[in-house]
Amino acid sequence: MKTSLTYGMIGGHNRAFIGDVHRKAIGFDGRATLAAGCFSTNPELNRETGETWRIDPARVYPDFKTMAKTEAARADKVDFVVITTPNNTHYEISKAFLEAGFNVVCEKPLCFTIEQAEDLVKTAEDKKLVFGVTYTYTGYAMVKVAREMIANGKIGQILTINAEYAQDWLLDQVAEKAKEGGSNLSVWRMDPAVSGISNCTGDIGSHMENMVHYLTGLKIKRLAATVNRYGHELDLNANILVEYENGINGGYWCSQVASGHKNGLAVRIFGTEGSIEWEEESPDYLKYTPRNEATRILSRSSGYISEKAGATGRVPAGHPEGYYIAFANNYRNIISTILKVKAGQEPTDNELDFQKAEDGLNGVKFIHAVIKSAGNDSEWVEI
Amino acid sequence: MKTSLTYGMIGGHNRAFIGDVHRKAIGFDGRATLAAGCFSTNPELNRETGETWRIDPARVYPDFKTMAKTEAARADKVDFVVITTPNNTHYEISKAFLEAGFNVVCEKPLCFTIEQAEDLVKTAEDKKLVFGVTYTYTGYAMVKVAREMIANGKIGQILTINAEYAQDWLLDQVAEKAKEGGSNLSVWRMDPAVSGISNCTGDIGSHMENMVHYLTGLKIKRLAATVNRYGHELDLNANILVEYENGINGGYWCSQVASGHKNGLAVRIFGTEGSIEWEEESPDYLKYTPRNEATRILSRSSGYISEKAGATGRVPAGHPEGYYIAFANNYRNIISTILKVKAGQEPTDNELDFQKAEDGLNGVKFIHAVIKSAGNDSEWVEI
Amino acid sequence: MKTSLTYGMIGGHNRAFIGDVHRKAIGFDGRATLAAGCFSTNPELNRETGETWRIDPARVYPDFKTMAKTEAARADKVDFVVITTPNNTHYEISKAFLEAGFNVVCEKPLCFTIEQAEDLVKTAEDKKLVFGVTYTYTGYAMVKVAREMIANGKIGQILTINAEYAQDWLLDQVAEKAKEGGSNLSVWRMDPAVSGISNCTGDIGSHMENMVHYLTGLKIKRLAATVNRYGHELDLNANILVEYENGINGGYWCSQVASGHKNGLAVRIFGTEGSIEWEEESPDYLKYTPRNEATRILSRSSGYISEKAGATGRVPAGHPEGYYIAFANNYRNIISTILKVKAGQEPTDNELDFQKAEDGLNGVKFIHAVIKSAGNDSEWVEI
Amino acid sequence: MKTSLTYGMIGGHNRAFIGDVHRKAIGFDGRATLAAGCFSTNPELNRETGETWRIDPARVYPDFKTMAKTEAARADKVDFVVITTPNNTHYEISKAFLEAGFNVVCEKPLCFTIEQAEDLVKTAEDKKLVFGVTYTYTGYAMVKVAREMIANGKIGQILTINAEYAQDWLLDQVAEKAKEGGSNLSVWRMDPAVSGISNCTGDIGSHMENMVHYLTGLKIKRLAATVNRYGHELDLNANILVEYENGINGGYWCSQVASGHKNGLAVRIFGTEGSIEWEEESPDYLKYTPRNEATRILSRSSGYISEKAGATGRVPAGHPEGYYIAFANNYRNIISTILKVKAGQEPTDNELDFQKAEDGLNGVKFIHAVIKSAGNDSEWVEI
Repeated sequence: MKTSLTYGMIGGHNRAFIGDVHRKAIGFDGRATLAAGCFSTNPELNRETGETWRIDPARVYPDFKTMAKTEAARADKVDFVVITTPNNTHYEISKAFLEAGFNVVCEKPLCFTIEQAEDLVKTAEDKKLVFGVTYTYTGYAMVKVAREMIANGKIGQILTINAEYAQDWLLDQVAEKAKEGGSNLSVWRMDPAVSGISNCTGDIGSHMENMVHYLTGLKIKRLAATVNRYGHELDLNANILVEYENGINGGYWCSQVASGHKNGLAVRIFGTEGSIEWEEESPDYLKYTPRNEATRILSRSSGYISEKAGATGRVPAGHPEGYYIAFANNYRNIISTILKVKAGQEPTDNELDFQKAEDGLNGVKFIHAVIKSAGNDSEWVEI
Repeated sequence: MKTSLTYGMIGGHNRAFIGDVHRKAIGFDGRATLAAGCFSTNPELNRETGETWRIDPARVYPDFKTMAKTEAARADKVDFVVITTPNNTHYEISKAFLEAGFNVVCEKPLCFTIEQAEDLVKTAEDKKLVFGVTYTYTGYAMVKVAREMIANGKIGQILTINAEYAQDWLLDQVAEKAKEGGSNLSVWRMDPAVSGISNCTGDIGSHMENMVHYLTGLKIKRLAATVNRYGHELDLNANILVEYENGINGGYWCSQVASGHKNGLAVRIFGTEGSIEWEEESPDYLKYTPRNEATRILSRSSGYISEKAGATGRVPAGHPEGYYIAFANNYRNIISTILKVKAGQEPTDNELDFQKAEDGLNGVKFIHAVIKSAGNDSEWVEI
Repeated sequence: MKTSLTYGMIGGHNRAFIGDVHRKAIGFDGRATLAAGCFSTNPELNRETGETWRIDPARVYPDFKTMAKTEAARADKVDFVVITTPNNTHYEISKAFLEAGFNVVCEKPLCFTIEQAEDLVKTAEDKKLVFGVTYTYTGYAMVKVAREMIANGKIGQILTINAEYAQDWLLDQVAEKAKEGGSNLSVWRMDPAVSGISNCTGDIGSHMENMVHYLTGLKIKRLAATVNRYGHELDLNANILVEYENGINGGYWCSQVASGHKNGLAVRIFGTEGSIEWEEESPDYLKYTPRNEATRILSRSSGYISEKAGATGRVPAGHPEGYYIAFANNYRNIISTILKVKAGQEPTDNELDFQKAEDGLNGVKFIHAVIKSAGNDSEWVEI
Repeated sequence: MKTSLTYGMIGGHNRAFIGDVHRKAIGFDGRATLAAGCFSTNPELNRETGETWRIDPARVYPDFKTMAKTEAARADKVDFVVITTPNNTHYEISKAFLEAGFNVVCEKPLCFTIEQAEDLVKTAEDKKLVFGVTYTYTGYAMVKVAREMIANGKIGQILTINAEYAQDWLLDQVAEKAKEGGSNLSVWRMDPAVSGISNCTGDIGSHMENMVHYLTGLKIKRLAATVNRYGHELDLNANILVEYENGINGGYWCSQVASGHKNGLAVRIFGTEGSIEWEEESPDYLKYTPRNEATRILSRSSGYISEKAGATGRVPAGHPEGYYIAFANNYRNIISTILKVKAGQEPTDNELDFQKAEDGLNGVKFIHAVIKSAGNDSEWVEI
């Protein structure tokens, strides 16, 4: 059995954010290699990104149609493609690659219309292809633990659900417009041509829907919503009453104008035997309150987490998963310094920002002083 | 100028934890490639790890001395080596590679004796080689922001410092021994042969010393310490009074028996014009209290962070840096599923745990229902 | 001008909870004295409560009608009455005392029907009498600070509001009923005969409505609600979409079945220039996030609170207002001990639970040892 | 057996803070009445305070010696006295009242010298009098619960203790002095003539000592301390290593210059079977982590608190004890309004700040609208 794969990417040139996230995430476990791409409609940027990733120039394509067709004809064609282009192109590109026989991973939202989405589901099924959509937040270890706890009956029958996703990055747009003769700042996300019928609900509200469904399996039967546009074309805030197929209710709120909330995805699920609460800004912890007992703070990777999903953690308990990034930041500077030194150049202060042998020496001195003091009736010792 | 490097690794075979962390962290920015190694003294494991990383078998060495000598003689020798072997071998291996002309990155603690540490500092200086020590925690973006704020006078002259590092992973060892006829559980970290003169202070206490020094530049002049061994050979808890060279004082505490604390590195620095507080279990936030003002919670990557170090963040504000891991977890399952499908096997439920086109379809339906309800005076709509 | 008042109480016998809260709260500032009452329909309990409060037996009345009539005829009649009887009697009693010319303070909910409520409002107006309703939570200092900040434009124009009030004290009732052949536990609050048309919304939901109105002045124009009864007669959970008169929206949630939430009244108000968040379980703090700035944690009675309402605080910053209760608990034991000693009895361990001269001595020894050590180069000193 | 007492007060005139706290705390349970006093050395203020509390003018004394002598001679002499005068007078006054046969409650610190303290302990013992010292913080319900849990073995054998008490109210004094040609702000607490040998340790450090002793019963055997005076006469910051009689260690820190900390008394106790953590700024909660289990947040007055001390709570779970103050604030305004109305004056906006019948009406409308919407398939209803 094969143990690694190759993949292609549509979008994700060197200056784009999310494409790089996909590459780093795939690189994390080292089981798939980037082998082809159509990274930008700008030929220069496309070529340059291909070079950065040392991709055979013959596999850096001018457009996605050429890519789908040419790759499909190769014996060593990529095993899957990743689509990180603007939302209004997701459907067309996904469809093309499915038709050409490729497994697809597409950024959310999947597409603009229900018909398009149903078509993609059906096409993937017909072709027996894998089609992944990157609702990232379901990937956190503690979300998986929560889901397993709920499935195992830890909170009994679900009674009600609260979900919210609050951000504040579009508050300036609303605040400026609200002023006397206020200006009309706007960003692409607020433009129907790029975002379709919805801005806030489409971009972040859909995560609430997905997260609740992921955690509980519940499907929404009907809903009533208020949305607020504050003078702009698309929604910037929404409150939603939902009724699930089993007759219970929930309340959802999403907003891009909630001052102080940067990425506040939070979900709280209440059942007959307890409750579970999780928020993305503190993803390594779960609040769990069994009925009539004290609230417990479950910490990722702790020994007391008996759920299988607990094994999803990548670092020991108490270490946030950003630990890897801290490590990477140190290596970024070490590598930059070595490169500068090799080139006979002076590293900057910033590049020299890593801990060195001198720091190791200080540490050894500290340890020795502590043990020496303790060994001498805790008297003071000079370092 | 070169834009990428190669590196070798000593230790870090396929079943070791920290070696893999180093590889993933280096891989994160994709600017260095693993090209040589001596991953284990077990030949089979050594060979197997080399294969996993597709390393030229000629560059998978049986022992570190051979590696240093052979690599040094190659025209394409590695640019730096990473040492992730047990603590009692750090000095010898570091010394050998420095002597052979290699830049070195070594896990902490650097070595056992002050003389060894001083020798490594001097050797690296004499040879003009880079020598990095991986005190990981200084790599967090908000630690760097804190350091810059302190350097810029945001908290004025420092008045006092509190640092602590509390864990509970060795509490079982103490609790069992404390019982009547209690058993003597022990782990390698508690063994002087492996850990030297100190367990707790050496392993985690040294991080407090390093972190305070990193943030403030202060050096400890003298200290008095109590350590508690609870019947074991090495320290499991330490309280330390410190006096810095400028005459001010601080209080440090480290423990491996503090029930409920998983990796509680926390530092609080108080000055004439304000204070800064940071804890590793919530690394994306900083508490900052200017004198006579309300406490502010600074969130990584927020627009209001004017310090240059703020640019160290890798994801938008509100997203914990573990976001990359959530992404990676999703891809792990997607890739496993594709591999299984290609091999004609059935993916497990766990491997199928990623969001699919159907989930994308649910999202599109949800968005449409919200906007339809809002467009119809917020009446209820079926999904 | 008079500087103190007398009051009468209807309900609030010695074994009732809320009546005692009223008496203690009135007693706090010592400006009104209990002088008459009809504490219980049980004559014995009525008499006994009168004695406890040293009330002239002639002013301990058998029923509220007699009380209203007799007091009204006295020259020294009480200045106001406090009504703490069950909800289904509020209207009748309030009406009787208003008609008799008394100022009234009534527990919430004011009454059962809109007509009754309108009648009380009109009667009080016509008679030019004061009519207070004890929505207690608006009395917190930081609620008043928040209200003043909002009135002063600190958060600009309001964009959206979230309010919730979550408890879990009726979860057992729902959990037991949900079981196979589950039993039908019930409490008076769930009985329509006592609570009227609503349990959860009436008891706690009404606080959300009142708190938002108090803080912002906004009035609700229309609403849509789902309520959940989980097989019981009255609501135990409600989700509500609201539209205020100015066209903006809010989302409210109240519940008595939310495991882990004891008294979670929380309100978050988002405006063009910032947001304010407050929760009753941590009443001495306010989260305030000016647009594009870091979140501030405002602490009651701090010097930086410039709003006049800040003066409402009764203890210094950092001291929770429960400080008074801690103090009272100490005195409770001291007084019990003195009473026992005077009676020649042995105080219990619980009664002796207060700090004594010996503890004061220990404190003095501690202080002396600290200063002595510090004066001797921080050497160790015996206590 | 007597069921109530009378007391006298030395200090605590109408403009003093802590005297009023004592009176309110004693008044809370209504079992002792203020009957005599020497409230101020200022005759006018003394007289005026006596009037406010309706004390027989013959029992408002010009000095404490006259008071002790005269009261002692009365048949109806007070049952105890409360001393709230400046620290430097505690000894003399306490001694005088003990000698005259009175039970005494004295503010902390008890006195200045160890000899004085020992003398008071002995005198009270000899005379068989009750002598209480108001270390207030031991009066919190959750402190008592913690103490009982520790006594019951819930955390096993104690391994180490951390205590701290951080404030920032004297930071200005230090910050101003630290400036070039900085001025020398000072407050009475920093003056040796009033505070004795210590400021910070005496005022707040002594609470740490007392709280740890109260919770655990441990006595300090020896200690080593650093104190910082920052150019002033008395200590403003102290770090202390302690060794208890049983050989274990703890670390204490107290400070009045810790920006952002208003009244941060916090204590953490770690044992072989778990840990308990409590902080005064959030007094209604306790963190409890049994060995190898998740941290639990215990909430005051919750049903799951089985310790007897849990009964000390005065309000239901989830309600902070400041609930009484919120209630009292409402009554303050209601009473002020009634007084103004009776005097034919216009109440101020501030006095009118309480909830009225109109608010009760709004509440009733809200409840009706919610139930009506729910009864009509959750359609929108106008209020």
